[in-house]
Amino acid sequence: MELTALTEAVIGRLFVELEASGRHVHVTAQQAQQLFGHGLTPKRPLSQPGQYLANERVTVIGPKGEFQNVAVLGPERGEAQVEISLTDGRALGITPPVRPSGDVTDTPGIILKTDRAQVQLPRGVIAAQRHIHVHPSDAARLGVADKQLVKLQTYTQRPVTFEKLLVRVSPDFATRVHLDIDEANACGFRPGDLGRILHE
Amino acid sequence: MELTALTEAVIGRLFVELEASGRHVHVTAQQAQQLFGHGLTPKRPLSQPGQYLANERVTVIGPKGEFQNVAVLGPERGEAQVEISLTDGRALGITPPVRPSGDVTDTPGIILKTDRAQVQLPRGVIAAQRHIHVHPSDAARLGVADKQLVKLQTYTQRPVTFEKLLVRVSPDFATRVHLDIDEANACGFRPGDLGRILHE
Repeated sequence: MELTALTEAVIGRLFVELEASGRHVHVTAQQAQQLFGHGLTPKRPLSQPGQYLANERVTVIGPKGEFQNVAVLGPERGEAQVEISLTDGRALGITPPVRPSGDVTDTPGIILKTDRAQVQLPRGVIAAQRHIHVHPSDAARLGVADKQLVKLQTYTQRPVTFEKLLVRVSPDFATRVHLDIDEANACGFRPGDLGRILHE
Repeated sequence: MELTALTEAVIGRLFVELEASGRHVHVTAQQAQQLFGHGLTPKRPLSQPGQYLANERVTVIGPKGEFQNVAVLGPERGEAQVEISLTDGRALGITPPVRPSGDVTDTPGIILKTDRAQVQLPRGVIAAQRHIHVHPSDAARLGVADKQLVKLQTYTQRPVTFEKLLVRVSPDFATRVHLDIDEANACGFRPGDLGRILHE
C-alpha cells in the first residue's frame, strides 16, 4: 500500500469528520404552506442523505429578541423543531433545554414569521445534544452502538474532548459528528476538521 | 473531621471554580479620558484582586456589525484590548486570533465609540485563550506551574475536557478558570460550576 493510501486508511479507521450546525428550523408541511404558500424547496443537499437546506427562510421571535433569515431544513417533519445554541437562547430570551433531535416534550415555544404569516409554536425549541450520526457500516470500526454516549477528542485549533456525545446508528445516516455553534467555536472548528472517539 | 468538612477539603484540593468572561474592553487612561471625559470608575469588583467592572460602557464597531453597551474592565492598562468570542467575531466581521491576554501583536483593530468620542484601535482584538489564574499557594495542591498547558474536565451540564488550558501563576491572582462565552455555553456552564485539572 502506498504511504498516502495507508495514511488515508488509518485516518478513515480512527477519525470522523466534524460538522457545525448553525441555528435552524424544521417545519411541518402544513406550517410550510402557511409560512411560504407552498412546500419547502431544496437549495442544496446536506451531508445527511435526503436532508437539504431549503430556499425558504424565516424570522424566529423570542420574548427578548429575534433572528431574521434563519435557515429552514427539509424535508418537512411531523412536528416543528427550532435548534438554537445557548448563546442564541440568551439573545432570544429563551433557555433551550439540551435535547436529542425529536425530543421536544416540555420544551419552550417560539414564533416563526414570514412576509405571509406568523406561526406560534407551542413547543419545539432545543439546543441539539451533541451527537454522532453513524452508518451501520462504520459502527464496528468506530466501536460504537446506537444510543451509546462516548467521548470525542477534536483535532482543532483549540482542542476539546466532548463528553456524552450521543451515538445514533442508522442506515439513513452518513457518519458525521454534529456540534452546535457554541461547541464548534469552543474548539476552534474549521470545515474539514476531524475528531476521534476515545475508548478508555 | 466531620463529613462536611472532609468533603469540602477534598473539593478544595481537587476542584477549581469556573468563570465565564463575556465580551469586554480594556482601555488606556488616555482613551478613557477621550471616551468618557474622565478615568474609569468601579461599579463592582471582579474575582481577580484589584480588577473591576467599570460603570462606563462602549460600543464596539466592526466591519460587519457592532455591539452596544459592552463592558469595560478596570483599571486602565498600558494598551487597549478587546476580548470577544469567535461567535462575536462572526457578527462583527472580525476573526480574532486566540491569544493570551496582553499578546496583541498582529491582531485586528476595531472602533470604540461613546456619545463623546470615537477611538480607532489599530490592534487589540483577541479571543482570550482559555486559562487558569492560580495563586502560588494553590499551585502545589493543583500540581501546576506557570505557563504550563493542562487539561481541565468540567463538572457541568454538558461535560467537556478543555485541552491546552494555559496556567498563569501570580500572587496577584485568585485561583479561577476563565472560559469565554463559547466555551462556557459549549459545556453548559452555570455560575458555581467546578472543573478538575487532569494529570495523565
